[in-house]
Amino acid sequence: MSTLNRQLVLRRRPKDLIAPGDLDLVQTPLPELKDGQALGRVKYLSVDPTMRVWMAVDTYLPAVAFGEVMRAIGLAEIVESRAKEFKKGDKVVGLTGLQEYVVIDPHEKQRGFQTVPAIPFLSDTAFLGVLGFTGLTAYFGMEIGAPKKGETLVVSAAAGATGSIAGQIGKINGCRVVGIVGSDAKCKWITEELGFDAAVNYKHADWKEKLAAATPQGIDIDYENVGGEVMQEVLSRMNLFGRVVLCGLISGYTKGDPGMASFGNVLVKRLRVQGFIIIDFASRFMEAATKLGQWKMFGKIKDRETIVEGLEKAPDAINMLFAGANTGKLIVKV
Amino acid sequence: MSTLNRQLVLRRRPKDLIAPGDLDLVQTPLPELKDGQALGRVKYLSVDPTMRVWMAVDTYLPAVAFGEVMRAIGLAEIVESRAKEFKKGDKVVGLTGLQEYVVIDPHEKQRGFQTVPAIPFLSDTAFLGVLGFTGLTAYFGMEIGAPKKGETLVVSAAAGATGSIAGQIGKINGCRVVGIVGSDAKCKWITEELGFDAAVNYKHADWKEKLAAATPQGIDIDYENVGGEVMQEVLSRMNLFGRVVLCGLISGYTKGDPGMASFGNVLVKRLRVQGFIIIDFASRFMEAATKLGQWKMFGKIKDRETIVEGLEKAPDAINMLFAGANTGKLIVKV
Repeated sequence: MSTLNRQLVLRRRPKDLIAPGDLDLVQTPLPELKDGQALGRVKYLSVDPTMRVWMAVDTYLPAVAFGEVMRAIGLAEIVESRAKEFKKGDKVVGLTGLQEYVVIDPHEKQRGFQTVPAIPFLSDTAFLGVLGFTGLTAYFGMEIGAPKKGETLVVSAAAGATGSIAGQIGKINGCRVVGIVGSDAKCKWITEELGFDAAVNYKHADWKEKLAAATPQGIDIDYENVGGEVMQEVLSRMNLFGRVVLCGLISGYTKGDPGMASFGNVLVKRLRVQGFIIIDFASRFMEAATKLGQWKMFGKIKDRETIVEGLEKAPDAINMLFAGANTGKLIVKV
Repeated sequence: MSTLNRQLVLRRRPKDLIAPGDLDLVQTPLPELKDGQALGRVKYLSVDPTMRVWMAVDTYLPAVAFGEVMRAIGLAEIVESRAKEFKKGDKVVGLTGLQEYVVIDPHEKQRGFQTVPAIPFLSDTAFLGVLGFTGLTAYFGMEIGAPKKGETLVVSAAAGATGSIAGQIGKINGCRVVGIVGSDAKCKWITEELGFDAAVNYKHADWKEKLAAATPQGIDIDYENVGGEVMQEVLSRMNLFGRVVLCGLISGYTKGDPGMASFGNVLVKRLRVQGFIIIDFASRFMEAATKLGQWKMFGKIKDRETIVEGLEKAPDAINMLFAGANTGKLIVKV
């Protein structure tokens, strides 16, 4: 086993996309494990839009400090343990950070390490995607959306990790589901493979007409991942008493909050706009993961992963999210 | 009895405040009553911010058409009846329009005429204010706000007809209640007479600091009547899981929707923003009016009226709302 750890530490707060030098790859000696600690070899890292927020500002978690290992959710295999909670060979998910090895102290609750079960038909990476925070987010977000049979659900960033699952949960609930995406290939994937009723590529000049044509009965639920102009257009087509599930505002994470040009629709159409963060639902993760696992097993939810190889590629991988370069869950293999 | 009716009809859609000529005072002969109709002499007219919206655009009701009598809620006394539902001397509330006489057809449900009971301690105008749509709006809006004992409620336009009652309902529910108003006299009224815990005059340069000082525990509920910069500042002080009761956006009614400069707070603080319109709660009006009546009788809710005399003053009265020239319920005495 290596006695060196490679880590990506934060040096600067990015201005737009992550630039070279914002995250710095360093080698540090592995510390001696103390009683009660375990050492994990990080195998996969989850790449999530919220990481760009963590690099910049205090939000629901404090911004990552300069010199600190960049915060990230990852899957690690325990290679050495002096903790009664973990034994060698266990696989755990938690806030590993962008590094090759992670020292885990089970008493550090805020990093949330949990062992993941070995389930024959599931790859380890499923615990970062469909059964991880990504899938859990879609699950609880759709609960907030309160879909009813026959309603129209629109999902933005619909080929992304969370959006693709949220849309499929909409189908399970009997909704007409329309996805907004940034490429024709993604349109094809979500309609032909995932069963969305329609898809709209917002990069086409006539996308607003296409959205109107795809939502002839208006929109009852907006599962919103993007914000800005996309959200604005969706809101203009909302029906009375519609619900806006505010899961993400990715269009603003690198460029500053685009705000909302018109707020009157929320009043006049009596919309309910609800922001949420997945960590609020921690007490119900097991229930949700069980349900998601069943849906996956019975083919009601399909997922796809985009895997990028190498820890050093993690900054580029984060940037890929904002260019829409991934389909489904984006993961770095360490 | 006069055989002529004076009416204010819409000629132009106002650009900013209502200008001379937007509403035109005309005299028309009173039509012969048909079987099933009743004639009401309009005594009082409710002056509401939403009237400015009705003059301009289709929203939850269609915009008033050119040449049509301007839509308004009023209280009328039946002076002649060929309808079994109403007898001479009855007092009714409904969409009378800005005119002296109104022909009432009980089958025209959308104008919502109902007789009001004669209650010794209540003036007729109470049925346009604290027991009318104004009070009902505050009642159901505060239900959406779901106040809990010890929480902090901020009300904008807090000396207005709805805001002043919403704040007092907050006190009944055990909240710390802070009002935002546009004059020191209004600050004095809502704190000294209505029992608000604090008041902030947004026309003072240091109002944001004052708001911060008045809400040391942050804000749990925003009862929002104004929108724009006032709303923005309140939202920046919201606590996690706060509720924004979107009752009105009066800052945008004459100048165009100011939008929302930052939407990220809704996500990061997991706020629930809920728009509502009082007409959605029609089936529960009796329950709410009974409760409001009890509160008023026991002195838990105090109200004030600003009365403007003369139908021809109604356009100026609507404009007064946007200048903050009224305290409490603004009413035109016809």
